[in-house]
Amino acid sequence: PSETREREAADRQNALTKPPGSLGVLERLAIRLAGLQDTGRPRADKISIVLFAGDHGVTAQGVSPYPSEVTVQMLQNFTQGGAAISVLARELNASLEVVDAGSLAEADLQGVVADKPRSGTRDFSAEPALTADELAHALAAGQRAVGRALKASPDILVLGEMGIGNTTAAAAIAAALLDLAPLEIVGAGAGLDDDGIRRKASIIADALERHGLVPSGIPPLAVLEAVGGLEIAALAGAMIAAAQARIPVLVDGFIVTAAALAAVRINPSCRDWLIFSHRSFERGHQIVLDALDAEPLLDLRLRLGEGSGAAVAVPLLRLACALHAGMATFDEASVSGPC
Amino acid sequence: PSETREREAADRQNALTKPPGSLGVLERLAIRLAGLQDTGRPRADKISIVLFAGDHGVTAQGVSPYPSEVTVQMLQNFTQGGAAISVLARELNASLEVVDAGSLAEADLQGVVADKPRSGTRDFSAEPALTADELAHALAAGQRAVGRALKASPDILVLGEMGIGNTTAAAAIAAALLDLAPLEIVGAGAGLDDDGIRRKASIIADALERHGLVPSGIPPLAVLEAVGGLEIAALAGAMIAAAQARIPVLVDGFIVTAAALAAVRINPSCRDWLIFSHRSFERGHQIVLDALDAEPLLDLRLRLGEGSGAAVAVPLLRLACALHAGMATFDEASVSGPC
Repeated sequence: PSETREREAADRQNALTKPPGSLGVLERLAIRLAGLQDTGRPRADKISIVLFAGDHGVTAQGVSPYPSEVTVQMLQNFTQGGAAISVLARELNASLEVVDAGSLAEADLQGVVADKPRSGTRDFSAEPALTADELAHALAAGQRAVGRALKASPDILVLGEMGIGNTTAAAAIAAALLDLAPLEIVGAGAGLDDDGIRRKASIIADALERHGLVPSGIPPLAVLEAVGGLEIAALAGAMIAAAQARIPVLVDGFIVTAAALAAVRINPSCRDWLIFSHRSFERGHQIVLDALDAEPLLDLRLRLGEGSGAAVAVPLLRLACALHAGMATFDEASVSGPC
Repeated sequence: PSETREREAADRQNALTKPPGSLGVLERLAIRLAGLQDTGRPRADKISIVLFAGDHGVTAQGVSPYPSEVTVQMLQNFTQGGAAISVLARELNASLEVVDAGSLAEADLQGVVADKPRSGTRDFSAEPALTADELAHALAAGQRAVGRALKASPDILVLGEMGIGNTTAAAAIAAALLDLAPLEIVGAGAGLDDDGIRRKASIIADALERHGLVPSGIPPLAVLEAVGGLEIAALAGAMIAAAQARIPVLVDGFIVTAAALAAVRINPSCRDWLIFSHRSFERGHQIVLDALDAEPLLDLRLRLGEGSGAAVAVPLLRLACALHAGMATFDEASVSGPC
């Protein structure tokens, strides 16, 4: 990020016809985007949304109220325009690419980019979820997706995910990387009851033990091999690639934030490029946000995923940019400053 | 509000392709708008923004870092397009009417509707701010502005304000209506330091005493006469008129919320029509929100006024409506429900 652009943007904000600081987070967003985009005119007009989907072997243990087949059904719903993120992409005039990074689909799905080393992860309650090669493929799939998205020169990249069982993988990754008891971070996901949540936490705790992930200090790639997800690894790869290409990423909820934690552990310099869109209703999200020193823009009790929370935050970025560019200064408007 | 429409909308939300409740506040917004607008297809497309401005005699006591002349200067900035709300109105494709409900301007201002019983209130530290006739004029001015706005059949009305010194009047109104010590509710306004805040609280405390407003229980109209503002009274009149016309109102920050408190005390049935847009950084806002049992949509540390926070919340309403109308149901998309 350019400190010069940030300083110039902060000076401009202080000259605009409002008490200094009175646009709060919107001012800071405009200043930060000016630094990230290295421009005096930050923008959030062109939005590329990339969704990564994957299935999870651990669903065999009953960690989700929904069957794994929903992942592939939702991939079709995304491309046919009926899912929440499909509606949001249309409303925001954003592009939407759906990547099958590891669903159980055996055939190609219309409108979906297939880029996967295998169909679904292994059940991490019994064996490592991924081999080193499979993980490398998934990280590179994220990188490839960013490469495709960059062709449209987006101002902002929105990343989302779909995968029945992936709050379980995300909680396992976060617990391992943050050295937390799973019960502290596990939530209801798509709708578990309290017994289900306890069972999910216990499955994760056993797996962390089995794979030698407690106490923590294990390298992040080893954590992703043991308990990761293909879509989660692809998200981490995408964030690192976006940061390297100097494109700000709008981070969605619990699962994308867990992927962000892994990405930042793999490559700490990508942190600067991550803008956290919302605080999910999923219980562990706040813990992972805190670990990343992230203060999200919205708190709307969303817990859907698909990049939906990040998409809902896009208008805030757009309005922040419009205010930065469009407001008059005290001089221009002949308005008096403080006495 | 139509309970039937709300029930139908809730049923539709539960049939859409997402875990029930997973769109959180966005679901509840769509359901509430369906009830308020009495429709199966709630909308937030057509937005009318109405800004009321007024000046305050109490500024003679040094309660604001800005001189009163800024109110009129900002009226011109609003109509010339350089203020925050001007930019937001353009971005949202919303109409913007600016009403001089009581500024110090003696001549008509281009593009501003003048509808005021006097220029500025009297200094409430020395005498009542308004007579009963002046207050009645201001309440009716709010009603008249809503009448004009309704000609465009807006889906939502956004109300905002401008007036140097008006956090002082708003805090006095709220302290009187809620029986609070002014120091509990007074904030920095446009930028007072701690000494200034204490001084402002002490001026209000003395005024409440002088006008016989402590202990509370004084009728809201008497409170508005003693320590009110012309723009604040107009806002209260506008909210009551909007509720009577069955148009939802998006409420802005501290001052509009204090006006909402007065409106609800005058006419409790208007509460249903008020949607609270954001939690302002101004200290007393949370207290008044709590008194109205209001949970705002955004918390962006805004403290500008002008209706800016309400305007920034408009895209959330639009996206909530788009999701409600545009998402596929489980049946339509052939997606499986919970196991």
